[in-house]
Amino acid sequence: MNTRKGGSVDPERLRRQMDFALEIDKEKSIIRQNYIADASRRENDTEHAWHMAVMALFLAEYANEEIDLLRTISMILIHDLVEIDAGDTYAYDEAGKETQRERELAAAERLFSILPPDQAAHFRSLWDEFEERVTPEARFARTLDNFQPAMLNAASGGKSWAEHSVRLSSVLKRNAISPEGAAALWEYSREHFIGEYVKKGTITDDVGEDA
Amino acid sequence: MNTRKGGSVDPERLRRQMDFALEIDKEKSIIRQNYIADASRRENDTEHAWHMAVMALFLAEYANEEIDLLRTISMILIHDLVEIDAGDTYAYDEAGKETQRERELAAAERLFSILPPDQAAHFRSLWDEFEERVTPEARFARTLDNFQPAMLNAASGGKSWAEHSVRLSSVLKRNAISPEGAAALWEYSREHFIGEYVKKGTITDDVGEDA
Repeated sequence: MNTRKGGSVDPERLRRQMDFALEIDKEKSIIRQNYIADASRRENDTEHAWHMAVMALFLAEYANEEIDLLRTISMILIHDLVEIDAGDTYAYDEAGKETQRERELAAAERLFSILPPDQAAHFRSLWDEFEERVTPEARFARTLDNFQPAMLNAASGGKSWAEHSVRLSSVLKRNAISPEGAAALWEYSREHFIGEYVKKGTITDDVGEDA
Repeated sequence: MNTRKGGSVDPERLRRQMDFALEIDKEKSIIRQNYIADASRRENDTEHAWHMAVMALFLAEYANEEIDLLRTISMILIHDLVEIDAGDTYAYDEAGKETQRERELAAAERLFSILPPDQAAHFRSLWDEFEERVTPEARFARTLDNFQPAMLNAASGGKSWAEHSVRLSSVLKRNAISPEGAAALWEYSREHFIGEYVKKGTITDDVGEDA
């Protein structure tokens, strides 16, 4: 990884890295639909990524398969950078989701190419891996990407679920991939986060299941 | 790291992990003195940690010594958790800094012990390592801990430096450790972030140096 020869600095390379360092600051202004735990305000993308990354440090043992923790956390840290251009697409916004892939691909092209080419390729490959979820690391990261907001939705009194009149069928559809990464965490979420709010009626049970 | 036997879940262990996952959400409400790049609002601790962690991914090549990136990023992600109890101590608040260590030690005791004992010990050891900066990883992380806010202070027009009438001697004192982790990044910060605002007079040059 260390591409510097004898400690010398390539000013053009460092300039690109610093441009990127500043550009990604914009992710702090991308607001999600879910609230932070005390329900005082909505969460932003960087808070979500930080929370997922710390959780990965102590929940990795629940991954269905052995995972490389550095690659998992790297993916988690950068997975929402594309939303700087593409915006946050709410998990239950079906219209938004139709154009989401196209918008995010264009964002990935622009954003990662600010970096020096070798690092642009590395970041792009991490983002692709997360999107395609063909590795144990990506599957685990994607499970956390559902698990963390479900935890916050439950902690904040189901506020975001209520605001969007969310139905259980939608929650289950979104979480169809969750058991693939960490079955134990999905079970926990189903029982403690989602199940509680089905019982309360905040999430409408349109599948006729006991939650 | 995988302490689960045959995929079984220890409910008490998972309960402690979930208590900790929710507890750390409070770090999103710990507000720092520096602003985000567009100067619209102050940054919070979790945004700072996320930004440092992503920057470590593409600036690790400037570490003075070879570093283990996973341990570096783990340290970065958790280094400010103690501020949930201890609050943010501004780098140039000399009175606050006198009691900072004691307040943060008590916070570390309470917070990390929410986790199962093995993970509590791991997190505590990461936090101690960051504080003591006796490893290349900690030294690099500490350099980034100065570099990232200096970058944001510069980007936001020196707003936080101006508000606190910061003097160059204080900036240099705070950054005395910066060259130890990544000399090239400290030189960049000295020239581009700090130097520009000494020229502008935002940072008072009380050391009679050309910045």
